[in-house]
Amino acid sequence: MPTADRQLHFNLFLMGVGHHEAAWRHPRTDPQQAADIAHFQRLAQTAEAASFDSVFLADGVEARSDGGWGLISHFEPFTLLTALAVVTERIGLIGTVSTGFSEPYNLARQFASLDHISHGRAGWNIVTSAGERSAQNFSRSANQEHGVRYQRAAEFLDVVTALWDSWEDGALTLDRATGAFADADRVHEIDHVGEHFQVRGPLNIPRPPQGHPLLVQAGSSDNGRAFAARWAEAVFTAQQTLAEGQSFYADLKRQAAGFGRAPEQLVVLPGVVPVLGSTEEEAHRLDRELDELINPARAVGVLSTVLGVDLTDHPLDEPLPPLPPVTEINGAKSRFELIRDLAERDRLTLRQLVGRLGGGRGHQVVVGTPEQLADHIETWFTQGAADGFNIMPPILPDGLTDFVEQVLPILRKRGLFREGYTGRTLREHYGLPRPAGRFS
Amino acid sequence: MPTADRQLHFNLFLMGVGHHEAAWRHPRTDPQQAADIAHFQRLAQTAEAASFDSVFLADGVEARSDGGWGLISHFEPFTLLTALAVVTERIGLIGTVSTGFSEPYNLARQFASLDHISHGRAGWNIVTSAGERSAQNFSRSANQEHGVRYQRAAEFLDVVTALWDSWEDGALTLDRATGAFADADRVHEIDHVGEHFQVRGPLNIPRPPQGHPLLVQAGSSDNGRAFAARWAEAVFTAQQTLAEGQSFYADLKRQAAGFGRAPEQLVVLPGVVPVLGSTEEEAHRLDRELDELINPARAVGVLSTVLGVDLTDHPLDEPLPPLPPVTEINGAKSRFELIRDLAERDRLTLRQLVGRLGGGRGHQVVVGTPEQLADHIETWFTQGAADGFNIMPPILPDGLTDFVEQVLPILRKRGLFREGYTGRTLREHYGLPRPAGRFS
Repeated sequence: MPTADRQLHFNLFLMGVGHHEAAWRHPRTDPQQAADIAHFQRLAQTAEAASFDSVFLADGVEARSDGGWGLISHFEPFTLLTALAVVTERIGLIGTVSTGFSEPYNLARQFASLDHISHGRAGWNIVTSAGERSAQNFSRSANQEHGVRYQRAAEFLDVVTALWDSWEDGALTLDRATGAFADADRVHEIDHVGEHFQVRGPLNIPRPPQGHPLLVQAGSSDNGRAFAARWAEAVFTAQQTLAEGQSFYADLKRQAAGFGRAPEQLVVLPGVVPVLGSTEEEAHRLDRELDELINPARAVGVLSTVLGVDLTDHPLDEPLPPLPPVTEINGAKSRFELIRDLAERDRLTLRQLVGRLGGGRGHQVVVGTPEQLADHIETWFTQGAADGFNIMPPILPDGLTDFVEQVLPILRKRGLFREGYTGRTLREHYGLPRPAGRFS
Repeated sequence: MPTADRQLHFNLFLMGVGHHEAAWRHPRTDPQQAADIAHFQRLAQTAEAASFDSVFLADGVEARSDGGWGLISHFEPFTLLTALAVVTERIGLIGTVSTGFSEPYNLARQFASLDHISHGRAGWNIVTSAGERSAQNFSRSANQEHGVRYQRAAEFLDVVTALWDSWEDGALTLDRATGAFADADRVHEIDHVGEHFQVRGPLNIPRPPQGHPLLVQAGSSDNGRAFAARWAEAVFTAQQTLAEGQSFYADLKRQAAGFGRAPEQLVVLPGVVPVLGSTEEEAHRLDRELDELINPARAVGVLSTVLGVDLTDHPLDEPLPPLPPVTEINGAKSRFELIRDLAERDRLTLRQLVGRLGGGRGHQVVVGTPEQLADHIETWFTQGAADGFNIMPPILPDGLTDFVEQVLPILRKRGLFREGYTGRTLREHYGLPRPAGRFS
C-alpha cells in the first residue's frame, strides 16, 4: 500500500562475522570477533547511527558433534541483546525464542526485563522449533507435530501477553507518604487454565514500557501464516522472486484483515543478502570468493538442520536423494519446499545446492552494485512485496558498512528512507500502536 | 582456618533501593531508582572500585496481588547481570536461578553466555524454589517435596556441568586454511538419561571462560547443606549468633571434606545488614526511622513467602499462631526454624516480628559505628564463622557508600582486606580452581 510518506524499514540480522556460510574464512573478516561481545555492540551502534529500526538474532537449541555443527555462537539472545541495549539508545532489539522449550512465565519475565532495560526496545521473534535434536535436549524423545507446535504457540502467546498485562500501567504506586507500594486493584492474577499450560500470575515485573514487546514471526507455512496473521506485528520471510514476494505479502495482509487488523499493523520484511561491489564484476568476485571457501561437510550439516532431513552421509556430487513429501516434514515446511523446488528446478547436486544456498540459506541474494540493490529494494517496496527488508550482510562488519555508506544514501535521495529516528520505542519505529492492557 | 595472608571476601547483595523492607520510604533513597538500570550499574561500579569479589541478585518466580506483593523488580537476573557485565571489568556477577522451573539446556546456555560476555565473571546461585505460588505459575498444582526438589537439583547440576564441558577447551579451531570449524574429537554428546531429565547435547555454545561459572548455594537445611557440600563453591547463609555461625561453618567444611574437597574450596559468606552511623546513637536513629516506616501488610506478605505459611489474615497485634512442625514445611526449612525460634524466644506479636525482621529477613543486623562493624567482621572471620560477608545495605546507594568509605579502610588497615583485585575471573577472586572438563 504505497502512500506518499511511506518509508522503508530495515532490520539488521546479526550473525557472527557474516551470513555467508564461509564468511569466517574470508580475508575481509576476523573470525575471532564472533566470540567478542564488542563486535556485536559496534554492529548495533553502526546500525543505530544509520537509523535502522532494529537488530535481530536468530536462535536454536541444538548443535551437532559430527562435523555439521549447526548454529554455534558464544552468546544467547537475552544476554547478547542486553549487552547491546546498554550501549545504544534508539535501535530495537529483537530476539528469537522458541515456544517449544521455555516456560511462559520465564519468557515473559526476560522480555519484560529487556524492555525495561532498553526503555521500550524489545521484540520477540516467535518460533516453534522444528528439530528432533532440539527435542532431545529437552527430555523429549521426539518433537511435537507441526500443528501441535502451533497450538502450543498460540496458547503460549495468550499466557505471556496476559502476564505482561497483569500489572496495569501505573499499578506500582510507590506512595511514600501512605506506604502504598502498589495498587491491588490494578494487579491481577491471570488464572490461565489451558491444554498446555496452567499459570496463576501475576508476573513479578511491572508492565513493560511497550505494554507488550513487539511480536515478530518468521514462519511461512500455512500454520505459520495463520499464526502471523493473528499475532505478528512484523514478519521476517524468505522469498526468492518478486511474484512470490507479492503473493506472500498480499496473502498475509488479507489473512490479518480476517482478524480485524489493518494492513499496516503487520510489517513484512523479506530477508536479503546484499553482495555488493563498486562494479558488477567486483560484486561477483566477492560472491565467488565466498562460495569457493564453503566447507561442504559443515554446509550439509546446516542444510540438514534447515530441511529436517539428514543428508550428512549423502555423496556430495550426486543429485539430492528423493525427499519425503512435505506432509511428512515436521520442520520448517515452507523453507523445505523452497529448497526442494530450487534443487529440482536447476537439477543441482548436493555440492551445488549448498553452494547456491551458502550465501542466504534460502533468502534472496542480490549480487551487484549499490544502485542495483537500491533498485531491487525500491521495486519490492513499491510493488507490494515488502514494507522493508531484513538485511543479512554476507560478511561483517564490512557488509553492513558498505550497505550503510553506499545503499542507504541512494534510498534517502529517493525519499524512501528517513534521515533519522522519529520515535523512541521499537513500536514507534515500526509505526505500531502500544497495546492497551486487557485488564484496563 | 586463619592463615597469615588470608583475606576477607565481600559480595554486594543487590536489592532495589535497599534491603530494609521500608527502604523505599526513607528520605535517603529515591524509590524510582529501583526501576532504573543505571542505578544498578552505578552500584556495581562502586563495589568494583572497592574490589568486592562479586555482586549478587536474589530471584523468585511469583508475586501476590493481595497487598503482600512479594519480591517485585523490574529486572530478572540474566538481563540485569549482563547490563552490569558490560560496564564493569573485574567484579563477579552472581545470579539466582531455580532448578525447579527451568530446563538445564536453557540455563546452561544463559550462564555460558554471561560468562563469555563478562570474560569469566559469572556465578550461579542455585535454589530449588519453595513456594506453592511459584509452582502454580509453572503448570503444577503443588510444588515438589523438599527432598525431591534437591534430587532434581543434583541431577540438574550433573546435566548443566556436562553441557558446559561438552565443548572441550580449544575445540573451536576456526582453521581458515583447512576450513576446519571445530574439532569433532573434542565436541561431545552427553547422552544424559536420568530420572528427571534426558538431554543429548552437545551445548551450542563453546566452553565458558571459567570452565564452569562459579557454583553458589544458599540452603541451610540438612538437604541444603549436603547439596552445598557436594556442589557449592561459595555459600550464602543467614546466621544470627557467632556460635551458630561457627557451628554452621565447621559443619559445612566437614561435610565438604567427606566429598574429598579441601576446606578452602568452599567459601562461607553469612549475610550482614550494616546499619551504620558515625555514632551509635546515629546508627540507632537510622534503624528506628526505617522500622517506623514498615508497612505491616506488605511485610507480612514477604514473611508469609519466606515462611511458607500464609499469615496475611492473622491479627497484627497477637502472637503468631501455632506454626506447623518443620517436617511439614515444604519451603525454606532452615529459615523457617530461625524465624520461629526468634518469635518464640522473645514472645513477639506478628507486628513486632516483622519489625524485627524488617531489616534483614533473618540475616544478622549490625547497628553501630564503622569501627564496631569492623570488629564484628574481624571476629567472625578470625573465629571460624566466616570467610567473608554478603553485604546487605539497608538503604542504597548510601548504605554501600558508607560501608566502602568507612568500614573497608579499617579492615584494610588491619590487613584483612586487599587493596585491589589480584585476579581477573570470579573464580580467581575467590581463590577457586578452574575445573577440568570431564571429557578432557
